[in-house]
Amino acid sequence: MRKQFRDLVEPDVVHDLIADLEIGAEEETVPLTDARGRILAERVDAELDVPGFDRSNVDGYAVRAEDTFGASESDPVELEQIGRIDAGEQADTTVEPGTVVEIATGGVVPPGADAVVMVERTAREDETVTVRTAVAPGDNIMVAGADVAAGQRTLGPGTELTAREIGLLSALGIESVPVRSQPTVGILSTGDELVAPGEQLHSDAGQIYDVNSHTIAASVEEAGGRPEVYPIVGDDFEAMKTVLTEAATECDLVLSSGSTSAGAADHIYQLIDDHGELLRHGVAVKPGKPMLVGRFEETPYIGLPGFPVSALTIFRHFVAPKIRDAAGKPPRKREQITGQMAVTERYKEGRTRLMPVGLVEDDAENLLVYPVDKGSGATTSLVDADGTVRLAPETEQLDAGQDVEVTLFSADVRPPELLGIGEDDPVLSRLLDRLDNPRYLPLGSREGLRRLRNGVSDIAVAAGPTERDVEAVELGSWSREWGLLVPAGNPADVTGVADLVETDLSFVNRGRQSGLRASLDAGIDDLADERGTDRTILTDAISGYTLTAQAYESPPRRVRAGKAEVALGLRASAEPLGLDFVSLGEQPVRILAAPDRVEKVGVESLEDLLPLSDSLIGGLDGIESTE
Amino acid sequence: MRKQFRDLVEPDVVHDLIADLEIGAEEETVPLTDARGRILAERVDAELDVPGFDRSNVDGYAVRAEDTFGASESDPVELEQIGRIDAGEQADTTVEPGTVVEIATGGVVPPGADAVVMVERTAREDETVTVRTAVAPGDNIMVAGADVAAGQRTLGPGTELTAREIGLLSALGIESVPVRSQPTVGILSTGDELVAPGEQLHSDAGQIYDVNSHTIAASVEEAGGRPEVYPIVGDDFEAMKTVLTEAATECDLVLSSGSTSAGAADHIYQLIDDHGELLRHGVAVKPGKPMLVGRFEETPYIGLPGFPVSALTIFRHFVAPKIRDAAGKPPRKREQITGQMAVTERYKEGRTRLMPVGLVEDDAENLLVYPVDKGSGATTSLVDADGTVRLAPETEQLDAGQDVEVTLFSADVRPPELLGIGEDDPVLSRLLDRLDNPRYLPLGSREGLRRLRNGVSDIAVAAGPTERDVEAVELGSWSREWGLLVPAGNPADVTGVADLVETDLSFVNRGRQSGLRASLDAGIDDLADERGTDRTILTDAISGYTLTAQAYESPPRRVRAGKAEVALGLRASAEPLGLDFVSLGEQPVRILAAPDRVEKVGVESLEDLLPLSDSLIGGLDGIESTE
Repeated sequence: MRKQFRDLVEPDVVHDLIADLEIGAEEETVPLTDARGRILAERVDAELDVPGFDRSNVDGYAVRAEDTFGASESDPVELEQIGRIDAGEQADTTVEPGTVVEIATGGVVPPGADAVVMVERTAREDETVTVRTAVAPGDNIMVAGADVAAGQRTLGPGTELTAREIGLLSALGIESVPVRSQPTVGILSTGDELVAPGEQLHSDAGQIYDVNSHTIAASVEEAGGRPEVYPIVGDDFEAMKTVLTEAATECDLVLSSGSTSAGAADHIYQLIDDHGELLRHGVAVKPGKPMLVGRFEETPYIGLPGFPVSALTIFRHFVAPKIRDAAGKPPRKREQITGQMAVTERYKEGRTRLMPVGLVEDDAENLLVYPVDKGSGATTSLVDADGTVRLAPETEQLDAGQDVEVTLFSADVRPPELLGIGEDDPVLSRLLDRLDNPRYLPLGSREGLRRLRNGVSDIAVAAGPTERDVEAVELGSWSREWGLLVPAGNPADVTGVADLVETDLSFVNRGRQSGLRASLDAGIDDLADERGTDRTILTDAISGYTLTAQAYESPPRRVRAGKAEVALGLRASAEPLGLDFVSLGEQPVRILAAPDRVEKVGVESLEDLLPLSDSLIGGLDGIESTE
Repeated sequence: MRKQFRDLVEPDVVHDLIADLEIGAEEETVPLTDARGRILAERVDAELDVPGFDRSNVDGYAVRAEDTFGASESDPVELEQIGRIDAGEQADTTVEPGTVVEIATGGVVPPGADAVVMVERTAREDETVTVRTAVAPGDNIMVAGADVAAGQRTLGPGTELTAREIGLLSALGIESVPVRSQPTVGILSTGDELVAPGEQLHSDAGQIYDVNSHTIAASVEEAGGRPEVYPIVGDDFEAMKTVLTEAATECDLVLSSGSTSAGAADHIYQLIDDHGELLRHGVAVKPGKPMLVGRFEETPYIGLPGFPVSALTIFRHFVAPKIRDAAGKPPRKREQITGQMAVTERYKEGRTRLMPVGLVEDDAENLLVYPVDKGSGATTSLVDADGTVRLAPETEQLDAGQDVEVTLFSADVRPPELLGIGEDDPVLSRLLDRLDNPRYLPLGSREGLRRLRNGVSDIAVAAGPTERDVEAVELGSWSREWGLLVPAGNPADVTGVADLVETDLSFVNRGRQSGLRASLDAGIDDLADERGTDRTILTDAISGYTLTAQAYESPPRRVRAGKAEVALGLRASAEPLGLDFVSLGEQPVRILAAPDRVEKVGVESLEDLLPLSDSLIGGLDGIESTE
């Protein structure tokens, strides 16, 4: 039965299917203190006048207006004070002709009075009040019901309650309000390989931490739903049936993700088919092809892909609007912005594409858009992107400079103050900690320089020897001692690169983009020259030369974990990891800014931190400021 | 001692003073499930590789890549399947030359294999797998640490945790995270006149419901703080001291509002002066002149004005940024938008002005900005405005069409889909209930037509005789029966307007902008003609002719409350309020759209509801569709 659903359908068909799902939208009554962000279920008409009495808007004297007619600075009138009313007091004294009653802001205008004179336009001596201005009936009074009149329509159904609406409800004396219920959304992660965060992980057995339960739960909350996370279910038909039944009973909508293994997927199909209806399987969109829409018993069910980026993308695009709608929330605005492609991109697959993109502002605060594509299996692309660009199936190319519309992940998304790409380095990590909203992609020195040339990033961080230079402004630099990290006590007595060539010691390298690798390769070239041989002869002889890890501390961590015997790395990593260090030299780390971005706030903030202070170097061995 | 602080200081001085207040910013650890919206307090470096093993990205066969070299559709290779690995399984079988292991997406690439062939490019018969493509080493494999490498910097301090960051933390197996504490903000409302919503209100004694406790609490939450609301305090020195002491002990910041009565204000000054330090009193900004900044004991203290709109404006402008900062939240973006003034406005007072404004889109989706000024005592202006425009003290005029920058109340604020101004009417209330995000200002028929002419609103609702017509498209109309409402049984035997003139019956009228009033006045004119007398002779003889109430149901509600004997109103109000009705005629209610706005979505949605269906009229007496 899987085959009949293998035809991928167009995204709009899936949107329509999901729009047609019936998610129960009840209402409930909540106290005003819990009402923020909720959606009013019914119209609220005022049951009382606000204010409930004729109120003085100023500190002054309640008068009969006609007693002041003709009064002025040069020709004041004198009236007799016969009483005083404070806010919250009953007005007992009647203002007779020729008299006044002192009144505080908020006080009840007493009988007989029809205006209030501000205290600033009066003087008083004993019981005699000198009034230096004329007032008309109604002056400085807010009459009963002038703010809100009893019977008046005040708030309509569907209104989102913010501080301001809560204020109006308070003024009406309302302490609890009928609001739309938040749909309860059950969340199931399925897969034998999944382990809940915080529990013990057995990587050797192919286990990974469950990401989707938390991301989907947080996203359901963002959309106005109430997430209910169920325990992870393995590839077990009965267990899956039990949890699915429980979730369908307790929730208004059930979402599952995972089931990438064929067996588990088959179970889900089977269960939905036996106990409900499978409406669709598969949507022609990338990422996120696998997707189920149906019902389990009578409860709407949507199956999301297993890869976190795919699951979240499909959720945001297809499911979140439905949850918002069921919760009574209006569609999001201000999440659509227009930017210009920073680079040219080509596409071949004829499917709608929801392309994750990052944003960066150039010197003129134009918004540049660059694709973030690390493959759908990568969780880091979750945080390296700011939104998505939807591409029609027929789009074959986006040109640099072309306008594209970006759907932000939320209206609050800000482009980073600083976008840097380049080498991974412990001092750099500390520098980034002191900046406001930086984004740094540790793709290595070579890639950093390439992207700086392409006009994407604000800065590149380049370590070691670099092939060619780019036009850039050097903001600062430091040097770091690099070499080989070995277990404590250096049991194999490693002294240099030659030992790697001449022994079977298992080595862990850095990738080709890295400045550490460039320095190592320069060392190998020197050794090859010295020996009059070809460098590939030497690299072939190094056991693990092609085995790379991507952060500066990753290779030595493999040594610490007992998975390798020698690692390329920094002296700074030795002490924290309890390893020994064999020095092979020093290399410069340079921060290079694009010339047209040096005046960006983020770039200037970074420059302000250079040259390095002691607190930025403290505790890191082998690092020296070079300025 | 009050006098020395009476000099108003410029807003920037107050900003600086508040910026210098020290609000304790601790950190705390929260589980991932509660982390959404919180701010990371420390950098998070990865403690493990993600994935923790070489993982297959596809369903297929793990192979030694060299075994597939040269394979193609026309010249496939045959290999022997020797095992199968599902996701979450240990990889026990080693792939020897000439063999493959079947592997599921997410499975551990077994020893010996260095690539995976997608199942789509293979065929299998028994144990023989036909491979129709060549793969290179690494193809379809995500190597250990390729997503996140152990030791890698993943999230920096100050990062706001959304679904995406929570996903990355999950992938790292982190179940609880160090986040910035939310500053606790104590909220005190002071004033003898204040009553908490839900409790009994004595309007005669000048009581009003406390608005500030709820609006400020909700606003503190929006800014990232934790509100702590204290009981309302009256004008009592000892009680104020007790609550202020308690709040200062328990909170990181204390806000009070109110104290509009001189006595209470004096107490606050005295308390701050005796037990802390009063740094400033009074800021040169409108609304919101009264404002205190200081410390009570060692706790920062800010005193807000008593009027809700002033209190909220001052809070948003001066206090919210400080709370955001203490909570580690970045300053808001996307709350600033530019619009064009819809009308010309003049100003005289030489003070910085935070002018509340409403927004409306014209037919070309240009954003028009109009001032919402109902006086600082009005709570309805809380919800009728979308944001504020800050005007420099020297601004004397804003011209229609001039660009102004609006600070939205929140990034989510949407201009209404429909802006209507005009008559208050029960059918209209039902129509508005069925629209998405309408805004309707019930300012009366005359004001509605005036503003339609000025190009502010999308529609006007005009009832009764109107003085002159405007260029407009009539979307629809109905008629309503109007007249006089009297107590049940009509004890005074009222039959028409003449009874109001000839008796002392106390009457409640509608305002001059209202269509009901226009019809009544036309009736009085007729009576004056009939009697050959002047209309003012008649109106002077009506007891309460100048006493007006602002919603269609407000005058009859006064009759029901026993505060008046006759009210102008609609037949539709009689039955719900238990009153008798004396008919004086029927009047049309017309919905008129600005000709250039008829294609706005909101206007079209309204037009779709016309002519009136039975469900829109049902239960309302005296209403008839006129189409």
